[in-house]
Amino acid sequence: MTVPAHGLPARVRIHEVGPRDGLQNEQGVVPTEVKAEFIRRLAGAGLDTVEATSFVHPKWVPQLADAERLFPLVSGLDVRLPVLVPNERGLDRALALGAREVAVFASATESFAKANLNRTVDEALAMFEPVVSRAKAEGLAVRGYLSMCFGDPWEGPVPVGQAVRVTRRLADLGCDELSLGDTIGVATPGHVQALLTALGEAGLPASRLAVHFHDTYGQALANTLAALQHGVTTVDASAGGLGGCPYAKSATGNLATEDLVWMLHGLGIETGVDLGLLTATSVWLAEELGRPSPSRTVRALSHKE
Amino acid sequence: MTVPAHGLPARVRIHEVGPRDGLQNEQGVVPTEVKAEFIRRLAGAGLDTVEATSFVHPKWVPQLADAERLFPLVSGLDVRLPVLVPNERGLDRALALGAREVAVFASATESFAKANLNRTVDEALAMFEPVVSRAKAEGLAVRGYLSMCFGDPWEGPVPVGQAVRVTRRLADLGCDELSLGDTIGVATPGHVQALLTALGEAGLPASRLAVHFHDTYGQALANTLAALQHGVTTVDASAGGLGGCPYAKSATGNLATEDLVWMLHGLGIETGVDLGLLTATSVWLAEELGRPSPSRTVRALSHKE
Repeated sequence: MTVPAHGLPARVRIHEVGPRDGLQNEQGVVPTEVKAEFIRRLAGAGLDTVEATSFVHPKWVPQLADAERLFPLVSGLDVRLPVLVPNERGLDRALALGAREVAVFASATESFAKANLNRTVDEALAMFEPVVSRAKAEGLAVRGYLSMCFGDPWEGPVPVGQAVRVTRRLADLGCDELSLGDTIGVATPGHVQALLTALGEAGLPASRLAVHFHDTYGQALANTLAALQHGVTTVDASAGGLGGCPYAKSATGNLATEDLVWMLHGLGIETGVDLGLLTATSVWLAEELGRPSPSRTVRALSHKE
Repeated sequence: MTVPAHGLPARVRIHEVGPRDGLQNEQGVVPTEVKAEFIRRLAGAGLDTVEATSFVHPKWVPQLADAERLFPLVSGLDVRLPVLVPNERGLDRALALGAREVAVFASATESFAKANLNRTVDEALAMFEPVVSRAKAEGLAVRGYLSMCFGDPWEGPVPVGQAVRVTRRLADLGCDELSLGDTIGVATPGHVQALLTALGEAGLPASRLAVHFHDTYGQALANTLAALQHGVTTVDASAGGLGGCPYAKSATGNLATEDLVWMLHGLGIETGVDLGLLTATSVWLAEELGRPSPSRTVRALSHKE
């Protein structure tokens, strides 16, 4: 049943990260044609933004080493297809294939910057500076990811002021949109509101922000509701909850797009997504991957008589 | 990290339903001593209200046929131990054992009243009337459950007015507290707010209400946040997400108490619960039951190094 709530946006743009953030965390390497078919089906289900792949060095993320082969298979689709680029070499590769949107990925903490990029936060931002400026000069849309905005496995809770400072610097590089990542899923709604409020005070209104929650502790959808109440209209999610293995020890699954869509449509918020087609896509991919989707909505809808 | 949000209660009472609502949905029958130990450990983890069992006819719920043997094993604990009573015979049994709190259980829909109680809504309320009045005369606290407040598997969406009418009648019988059940887990936050608002207009303020969400579509915690924002301070949950089998087709798990506690404590809301002890209890019970807890928080915390 559709029952709107007061003060929520009329429409939300879902930034689908399954093919990139989801599949890069798979143990095995998924065949390129399966990835392409996944992206086609996501587009067919009405998702208008599908993060396609990453142009990091194949040594770092072997799961996405086929970016050059994959991108041309889907670049004709009538959807936005952002790709990750860690550096100028990655941007060169993305530009050569005609990518129109790129994303860089920074960390709010030194520990994760070191672990993920083998750089300090300053060094990472310095690496991204020419990437963002060249991308903007080429007319590309640029997203800046900020990981560990709420907590960090090594440093513990991340102070709001620290997350704001790095987000602000990433914005100042020229990123059009900033995606706030709760990479280890520890955030709760008050923390989300506090960060969004502080970012607004730092000149970054909700219209420039996206939220990227993980369901490690089951908090992703409650946090999303808090973000919507603050005016955020772009939400990252992963079809079927793909990303990390929810049955393994880290349990770092992304917010499942289907669970998000169930809530948004129940609230009367438009997404453009056909939940039946999306669920069918996740069921299909789960069969390809050989394990069930962790999304509760996928499980419930796919087991209906 | 603890970051309060505006307008939320300082303290929430968790009404733990695992031993009753959880275990009555188990395929097999759990040994009485395991149930007693489960209740003891829940009390030891700081839960002050643990719904212990049900005095329905053993033919209906064989999983809880040991109520007479179980209750004396735990009745000395310093916690509230409500028990379900469907009729006067059940009340007699509960009173004979010294129960101080009972609950009756009605349905907002005719279809579920028929399926669960083999009665119309009117007939069920008529059956509960002497139960509630006698229980009140005996000085007992009485809770009224209302199932299918948001949607029903046979009837589809449940209009707010219909749920309000049956809740109001259940309140008028003399129930101290009304627990609003989303038995099939379909609700979204706007629907929750609409029902709570309408109940307030019908003379039932948040202080007399509890919410009882199921995580079938992953919505339980977002709905809980909406209820807290409305002023509700009593939330039903099931340790470890016990209740129904989340891996089976119905996927009707209760909100996991651990996921709820993670959110509440993150919001700075007191519960009295020790999350570590609670998680250890759910891990212990999962081993007894031979299958993992579906709670994301239990999985994440129990796999930490």
